[in-house]
Amino acid sequence: MPDQRWDRLWVDVNVATMTDASLGVIEAGAVASADERIAWVGPEAEIGERRRETAAEVIRCGGAWLTPGLIDCHTHIVYAGDRTEDFRRRLRGESYARIARAGGGIMSTVRATRAASTEELTRSAVSRARELSAWGVTTIEVKSGYGLDRATELRMLDVAAALPRHLAVDVSPTLLAAHAVPPEYAGRRGDYVEMAVREILPAALEQGHAKAVDVFCEDIAFTADEARRVLDTGIASGLHGRLHADQLSDQGGGTLAADVGARSADHLEYLSRGGVEAMARADVCAVLLPGAAYTLGADRRPPVSTLRRAGVTMALATDANPGSSPITHVGLVLNLACIRFGMTPEEALLGFTAAAGKVLGLQADRGTIEVGKRADFAAWDVDDLSWLCYPVGPSPLKFLVKDGVPVESAEERVEG
Amino acid sequence: MPDQRWDRLWVDVNVATMTDASLGVIEAGAVASADERIAWVGPEAEIGERRRETAAEVIRCGGAWLTPGLIDCHTHIVYAGDRTEDFRRRLRGESYARIARAGGGIMSTVRATRAASTEELTRSAVSRARELSAWGVTTIEVKSGYGLDRATELRMLDVAAALPRHLAVDVSPTLLAAHAVPPEYAGRRGDYVEMAVREILPAALEQGHAKAVDVFCEDIAFTADEARRVLDTGIASGLHGRLHADQLSDQGGGTLAADVGARSADHLEYLSRGGVEAMARADVCAVLLPGAAYTLGADRRPPVSTLRRAGVTMALATDANPGSSPITHVGLVLNLACIRFGMTPEEALLGFTAAAGKVLGLQADRGTIEVGKRADFAAWDVDDLSWLCYPVGPSPLKFLVKDGVPVESAEERVEG
Repeated sequence: MPDQRWDRLWVDVNVATMTDASLGVIEAGAVASADERIAWVGPEAEIGERRRETAAEVIRCGGAWLTPGLIDCHTHIVYAGDRTEDFRRRLRGESYARIARAGGGIMSTVRATRAASTEELTRSAVSRARELSAWGVTTIEVKSGYGLDRATELRMLDVAAALPRHLAVDVSPTLLAAHAVPPEYAGRRGDYVEMAVREILPAALEQGHAKAVDVFCEDIAFTADEARRVLDTGIASGLHGRLHADQLSDQGGGTLAADVGARSADHLEYLSRGGVEAMARADVCAVLLPGAAYTLGADRRPPVSTLRRAGVTMALATDANPGSSPITHVGLVLNLACIRFGMTPEEALLGFTAAAGKVLGLQADRGTIEVGKRADFAAWDVDDLSWLCYPVGPSPLKFLVKDGVPVESAEERVEG
Repeated sequence: MPDQRWDRLWVDVNVATMTDASLGVIEAGAVASADERIAWVGPEAEIGERRRETAAEVIRCGGAWLTPGLIDCHTHIVYAGDRTEDFRRRLRGESYARIARAGGGIMSTVRATRAASTEELTRSAVSRARELSAWGVTTIEVKSGYGLDRATELRMLDVAAALPRHLAVDVSPTLLAAHAVPPEYAGRRGDYVEMAVREILPAALEQGHAKAVDVFCEDIAFTADEARRVLDTGIASGLHGRLHADQLSDQGGGTLAADVGARSADHLEYLSRGGVEAMARADVCAVLLPGAAYTLGADRRPPVSTLRRAGVTMALATDANPGSSPITHVGLVLNLACIRFGMTPEEALLGFTAAAGKVLGLQADRGTIEVGKRADFAAWDVDDLSWLCYPVGPSPLKFLVKDGVPVESAEERVEG
């Protein structure tokens, strides 16, 4: 397209394209956008004067680093209430599982979320999304799972899907009705699973927001058979499959995710070697959530070196939620991934970009800086990209571009 | 002083006075200032109408929580360069001690700091102080120790002492000439200690900025005897004594700090039971630095429950520095103190206020909200103060007051 007009041209940047499972660095690079898409990327010296003049706007970036807009592929940012009481109980030595069984944990958030108005849910979710946006996040996966009844699960998906009206992010909603057994189904877990599959899932499909279906497979949640029932039905209906797997114990979650053809298995502190191999064969992504491992004081770490050797795609996400990962500080998650999980800074950054795009089935559209992809970028005021993984302080984001348009400030979009 | 005029009166606040080794909560409270000092604190209902009318300005705080301005009692925020290369080496499995012996670590920062102009050192230190200020910090201890020669050590103290010209913080500078052996003294550690004691210390005393003297007592730094030589001389000269003690191995640092009459022993991952007892007897404070333990991947934790039982005052600080604790996010340090070190939220908050004031010898002047103390407050937009220790995201600081004056924004002071 030699004659395509460029809307904007960013120059004097170092570009990390995140292509070919590497940072894909182009020093002294440039990126052009046209019609919300990336129209050109390469060394600035190769643009050519005539071509440069076709750009409606040229933006000098002062040597900033440019990455794809970050993708947070595992969050629970729609909820009401807080969990400070759980936090105090954990500090007194109670386990997450014990607190959950005693009606704390997820269930206390379910009560607050059911009672909250849509406006309250929206206001707090926008505030959390804005915190992620301050860290360069332009695409957020958001799960339901604090409703556990048809009306509230659908309301959560509605709130999630509406976030882009309030700030410059795209949202990929996930139905997680099988997050916990609600009190009305106490002792009747199987009945709840059937209700989730027969009532909530079809209603969510009709609503049309959910792109994926997810299950929490764990002692304190749903069995592998129940998870399979939910995932099989959801995937057969056209949704992507996700699985909260092997977080607190080895439930064979990695193998299950591979069997049903899920896109990802998430958490994975107790993933077995067989699970790694099954995931590698079926090209299931591993979504690592070091914020949750850290917050729960887990000494156990996912088998990162085994996953690496097996060639499993490793994504990284905040798991932002009120209980086990009350974290919207992406820099801390990158830092934890390196320090606690043994990922390299490169793997951590790929985990929030290209790998996360693959988890959401959006790899053709975002997660790398390549011609034709959505023009979502984050520019960083750092000398070296590994700096994003290293100090834990304020976000070094210099500016954000969504759909080819500079986002002046998330605040402004909220007012608009 | 019934007729004293109040400059400002803050009402509709919940006050955590941090008195009596507790949060000292006054719900529906009020605080008044006069002449940079706290003139009154108590329940708002007890002010009385006539008294209220004497306030030149009444500030409604919408139910915010008010704490003393935080005190970060152990930082190294004056330095040049970065340590991303060390970070990558640590991720490859090299130990902090090995990197230091190979000329990385502190020594790479020494080279950069000696080469930096005073303007460069000031600009970057102001930026780090501003990051702390965004977390409610109004008093910062700042150590030298990246100069290791007379001129640069004095220049670091000068830069530290000048920070209050650029933003609304007070600084308590500490001479840490005995941080590492400089390359010019390789193999002559004893000679360097003598030079530090006979040349740098007297010069620092003449300069007049340093309030304390500190030593890094460790295999890779100085022996207990050398630390004693430095501390004895410094304390005899009227400085407070501080000690980097028992961080990477048991060097008897707690006992040494007690013997010489230091105000604090800092780090303490390897502190022995005997060390705890000696510190308790001599009323030496423990300064815990969970950011460094976390960043270095240390599994060993300081003996918090033993310190608690022995009645040792536990302070908490960021240890903000380029290598082992590149952290200015006070919320993360509070969170780490709870999750990794087993402190309660109350202990963590006291650690950044009353206890930290005691470490700096400023307990009569700051660290609690009491009549007569400096009117330095932080107001927090949280429902419950333990929230400060719980989610890791942006700072919930609502506003800051320094010397009785609302700090509109750290930015403004910088321009002024």
